[in-house]
Amino acid sequence: MGKQAKPSRAHAGRGSLLIIGGGEDREDGKDILTRFVELSGGADKKLVVITAASTVPDEMWEVYDKAFGDLGVERRSPLHVPGRGEANDAELVRTLDDADGIFMTGGDQKRLLGVLGGTLVEAALHAALERGACIAGTSAGASAMTAHMLADSDVELTPEKGAISLGAGFALLIHVVIDQHFSQRHRLSRLLTVVAQNPRLQGIGIDEDTALVVQHGVGVEVIGAGMVTFLDGRHIISNIDEIRLGKTPEMVDVRLHLLPSGSRYLLRAPEAEAGVSHIIDGKTAPAPLQEFLQNMV
Amino acid sequence: MGKQAKPSRAHAGRGSLLIIGGGEDREDGKDILTRFVELSGGADKKLVVITAASTVPDEMWEVYDKAFGDLGVERRSPLHVPGRGEANDAELVRTLDDADGIFMTGGDQKRLLGVLGGTLVEAALHAALERGACIAGTSAGASAMTAHMLADSDVELTPEKGAISLGAGFALLIHVVIDQHFSQRHRLSRLLTVVAQNPRLQGIGIDEDTALVVQHGVGVEVIGAGMVTFLDGRHIISNIDEIRLGKTPEMVDVRLHLLPSGSRYLLRAPEAEAGVSHIIDGKTAPAPLQEFLQNMV
Repeated sequence: MGKQAKPSRAHAGRGSLLIIGGGEDREDGKDILTRFVELSGGADKKLVVITAASTVPDEMWEVYDKAFGDLGVERRSPLHVPGRGEANDAELVRTLDDADGIFMTGGDQKRLLGVLGGTLVEAALHAALERGACIAGTSAGASAMTAHMLADSDVELTPEKGAISLGAGFALLIHVVIDQHFSQRHRLSRLLTVVAQNPRLQGIGIDEDTALVVQHGVGVEVIGAGMVTFLDGRHIISNIDEIRLGKTPEMVDVRLHLLPSGSRYLLRAPEAEAGVSHIIDGKTAPAPLQEFLQNMV
Repeated sequence: MGKQAKPSRAHAGRGSLLIIGGGEDREDGKDILTRFVELSGGADKKLVVITAASTVPDEMWEVYDKAFGDLGVERRSPLHVPGRGEANDAELVRTLDDADGIFMTGGDQKRLLGVLGGTLVEAALHAALERGACIAGTSAGASAMTAHMLADSDVELTPEKGAISLGAGFALLIHVVIDQHFSQRHRLSRLLTVVAQNPRLQGIGIDEDTALVVQHGVGVEVIGAGMVTFLDGRHIISNIDEIRLGKTPEMVDVRLHLLPSGSRYLLRAPEAEAGVSHIIDGKTAPAPLQEFLQNMV
């Protein structure tokens, strides 16, 4: 896995996403939150925490206020958005205009999108990514990042036709669906269900206290305690259209990739990307993973 | 999934395996045990139950004695084998010579192989399969069927180098490793570990109250309540040789197939098999599964 990434240079022309599987350490080593600060450009930068996924935004902010304070970040503030009115209040949303890092807490991704979907806040997220900021999300905040968002599921042990439903997320990534608390909550079957019903979507399952760093057009890195599971159903042979709701579909030829913490892959050969400042270095991904990654951004 | 299989004709020149993921229903519908009786040729045939995997063989026999009695089987008997001496006692083992169905109970597969591995009983299993009998195994009895047998594991949530070990099973199937209680005990990570360490071996995970019927050279069928998971690591790109024991390997391009109960596939096109009596009918398997199946027998 080679040497450590040098994540310093944010604002390098392209922003980054830090997609966290929930339960990131906020008290001890804080590896993932530390990386968020680094990806945002360092402790002297401005960080904003969006708490709208949670029904207890003040408690959420208390946790991250302390954590980012411990990491030496002075310019840190919450953005509490109680409803869609506030989410379209240009005055309130202005705080995101010069944010170097934006962090979306856990809670409920349907609530998060219900309040922020299609508002000025959503537009500000895209603008921030465009200008090179880091956008992080944990748990619900992670699932909310994609165009198609896992909204509901009552999948139990085995995949089940009709047992998941998707909603519209922030579309910071497309062609993928993100699930979180992945190994801990044994969510492979529900992500397989997503892929069986939507073979155009690739599934990404992120473990607790684990994050996937994505720099558009450059590469990915896995950090933290666990692993990231990639499910590619684009080659799938399935009978899902023939079976009844609630039944388990046949699924032949799902491609599975696991990347543990420390994995780092470039989308293309480094020499081909000489003109772009990378926040991720590493090797070029093996072909099947390469294709997965290129399809998702 | 079409019409029901007609499983009647056993002794059709090739025997069958009934590989059960543990916890099969023994009191109500008894679907899987009913299929065992059918695959053995019917309730008038002779069934023998091998209890050597268990430390409580009499209790095991009591359960199956009642179940097979309920199913109308008169000629049923246990084969209790306390040690290797008995396993090589030609007199004792003779009861297997004209058995139409042999059922191996659960318990501990290491114990089962420790007592029976390389003995006259093992030879009798092969002879029985050869002459067209059905050999069934549940839980430990299922894992014991393959040449390479999952013996020990301390894999937790994620795959882990060195956390599984294999032993030598009965080799009724080769090139595969069977795990049981698969969805219920969340065993994907340990089967992925087997495959990462042994890419030549294909992993088969069988759910509780679920069975895979295998007729050598003909096809497979899934019956019961759950599903069967097939893991093919022959294309894998992994760093497992470079990482330390206890670490999670990268795994790129594992092929995953899920077959729910009711799936039935022939190994080759039906017309090409006209000369063989099938206990399984169905369609020819899609190419990636076909290759998996042809590799395993």
